[in-house]
Amino acid sequence: MNLVDIYFKMKKDVQYIEDELEKSIDTDMRELNQSATHLLKAGGKRIRPVFVLLGGKWGNYDVKRLKHVAVPLELIHMASLVHDDVIDDADKRRGKDTVRMKWDNKVAMYAGDYIFARALAIAAELPIPQLHQILSNAMVELCKGEIEQVKDLKNWDQNFRTYLRRIKRKTALLIAISCQLGAVASGASEELIRKMYWYGYNVGMAFQITDDILDFTGTEKQLGKPAGSDLVNGNITLPALYTAHFGRTRDRFQTWMKEETFWDHVDEAIHLIRSDEGIAFSQQLAERYIARAHAILRDLPNNQAKTSLSGIADFIIERKF
Amino acid sequence: MNLVDIYFKMKKDVQYIEDELEKSIDTDMRELNQSATHLLKAGGKRIRPVFVLLGGKWGNYDVKRLKHVAVPLELIHMASLVHDDVIDDADKRRGKDTVRMKWDNKVAMYAGDYIFARALAIAAELPIPQLHQILSNAMVELCKGEIEQVKDLKNWDQNFRTYLRRIKRKTALLIAISCQLGAVASGASEELIRKMYWYGYNVGMAFQITDDILDFTGTEKQLGKPAGSDLVNGNITLPALYTAHFGRTRDRFQTWMKEETFWDHVDEAIHLIRSDEGIAFSQQLAERYIARAHAILRDLPNNQAKTSLSGIADFIIERKF
Repeated sequence: MNLVDIYFKMKKDVQYIEDELEKSIDTDMRELNQSATHLLKAGGKRIRPVFVLLGGKWGNYDVKRLKHVAVPLELIHMASLVHDDVIDDADKRRGKDTVRMKWDNKVAMYAGDYIFARALAIAAELPIPQLHQILSNAMVELCKGEIEQVKDLKNWDQNFRTYLRRIKRKTALLIAISCQLGAVASGASEELIRKMYWYGYNVGMAFQITDDILDFTGTEKQLGKPAGSDLVNGNITLPALYTAHFGRTRDRFQTWMKEETFWDHVDEAIHLIRSDEGIAFSQQLAERYIARAHAILRDLPNNQAKTSLSGIADFIIERKF
Repeated sequence: MNLVDIYFKMKKDVQYIEDELEKSIDTDMRELNQSATHLLKAGGKRIRPVFVLLGGKWGNYDVKRLKHVAVPLELIHMASLVHDDVIDDADKRRGKDTVRMKWDNKVAMYAGDYIFARALAIAAELPIPQLHQILSNAMVELCKGEIEQVKDLKNWDQNFRTYLRRIKRKTALLIAISCQLGAVASGASEELIRKMYWYGYNVGMAFQITDDILDFTGTEKQLGKPAGSDLVNGNITLPALYTAHFGRTRDRFQTWMKEETFWDHVDEAIHLIRSDEGIAFSQQLAERYIARAHAILRDLPNNQAKTSLSGIADFIIERKF
C-alpha cells in the first residue's frame, strides 16, 4: 500500500484537521496571523496528524476528539521549525522564504512562542491529565534536543550515541507520542498505547536518519534547499560521523577536520561523505528501525489501520524527498 | 502590614517553593542548567508564587499541591524574561548579566523554550483540566502582548487603550491567574476563584503602571538599570504617552517626535516626561486600580490572607524599586 492510497483513505479526516489547523492560528493580530499563516501554507506532509488519526483507530475513533491532539502536535512541530530557523540562519525551508527571513528574528521568536501556547490551549480542551503529562514532557525533551544540537554544532567530538540521543529528542519522540496520544485520546488499552509509542519511536528514528541521508544524496530540487545543507550549517549527522570515524578516508579526514579552515571548504567533505560507505551504513540502520516497527505491528489485530501504519513505515525509508 | 511582615508570615512555604523552583530546572545538561540557574539566582521578589499561596488560603490550603501552580507561574515569568532579553538587547537585568549576554541569543531562546516546557510539565502533574485551560490561554495572551510590544516599539501612533491592553496581556494576566489558580488548586468556590482573578488583575495593572513610572523616576541604583531605559529601547509607556498627547509641552513634543532624529536624543524627552504631569496622572491611575482591588477584598471574610493581600496591594504602588 503506497502513501497516496493511505492518505486517500483518510482524506476527509486529514482535510478536517487541515481546516482546524488553519482556524487554530486565526487571530485578530495581523502580524502574528501573517507569519503563522505563511508557515502553515508552506505545507509539509502533516505526518504527525496522520499518525494521530491512525493511533486513534485502536480505541473509539472520533476525529472531533483526535483534533485536540493532531492539531497541537503539528503546531508544536511548526513552532520548533520557526525557532530552528532563527538558529539555523536557514534562508530557505521547503523552497519558501522562512518566517525568520520575512519578519526577522524578533517576530519569529514570539510567533514560535505563540504557536506553542496555542498548541497547549487546544490540547487543554480535552480533559485527560495523562495527555498533558505526555505532551509537556515531550516538549521538555524536544527543547533539550534543540540545545544539544546547538552545543554539538561543528563539534566532531561526538559519537553515534550522541547522534541517536539527539534525533530521538529532536524528531522520534514527537512521532512516537503522535501515535501514542491518538491511542490515549481514543481510550485504547494501555498495551495498545504502549505499542503505538514504540511503533512511532522506531519509525521516527528511521525518518530522521533518512532525512539526514537525503540531505547528502538528494538534489536541490528534491530537497527544496541545497544538498549538504546540514554540514554547511555545522550539523554533523550520521553519514558524516561514519566517514569521520570509520570511512575509507578516515585518516585524511581526521587530520583535516581538526584544521581551522575545515568549515571554509565543506564542499569537499560533502563530496567525500557522499561517495563513502556511511550512506549505506545509515540506510541499514534506518532499515533496522523499520524492521522493529513492523515487528511491533505484527502482534496487532489485522485491520485497515495496521495496513496503513505498515505502509507508512515502508515509505519512510524509500522516499526520495 | 508591610511587605516584610507578609513574607515573614509565609516564609517557610515561600522557601519551600524556592527550593522546588531550584529543583525544577535541575538537569543533566550543563549548558541549560547554567543558564537557567543563572537566571534563578538573579532572584526577584517571587511575587507570583506569593500570590498563588495567598490564593490557596481560600480553599483547602496545601503547599504540596500549590507548588504545581506556584513553580510553573514563576517559571513562565522567567522564560518570558529570557525571551524578552533576546529582544530588548538588554545588557543588564536586575544588575546582573542577562542570559543573552552570557550565552548568546541561541541558547537564550532554547533555554526560554525549555523553561516554558518544564513549567507545563510540573503543572500537568496536577490533574485539574481547568488549570491547564487557564494556564495555556494565559500563555497565548502573554505571547500576543509580547508581539504587540515589538509592533508598538517606537510607534507614537498608539493611545492609552493600546497601552492598557498591552500591559494587561504582558503583566496583569499572569498575576491575575496566580491568585486565581491558587484558589483553583485549593478547591475554593467559583465565586472566590473569580474574586481572586479580579483582585490579581487590578493589582497587576497597578504593578506594571508603577514599574513604568519608576523607570522614569527611579535612580540607576534603585532600578538596577539606567533610568529611562524603556524609552531608550523604544518602549512607549503611560507617562510618555501622556506627555506626547496631553502634556504641557505637547505641541513641541509632537513636532519633535515625528522627526527622524528623535530616537537619537531621547535623553531630552526623558527629562521632559519626568518633569511633566504624566507621572502624577499615571500614579492616580495605579491608585484607582488598587482601590478596586481593595473593594474586591472588602466582601471577603476577614482572615490573615485578606490582610496580606491588602498589604501587598498597598505596597505595589508605594514601592520605590
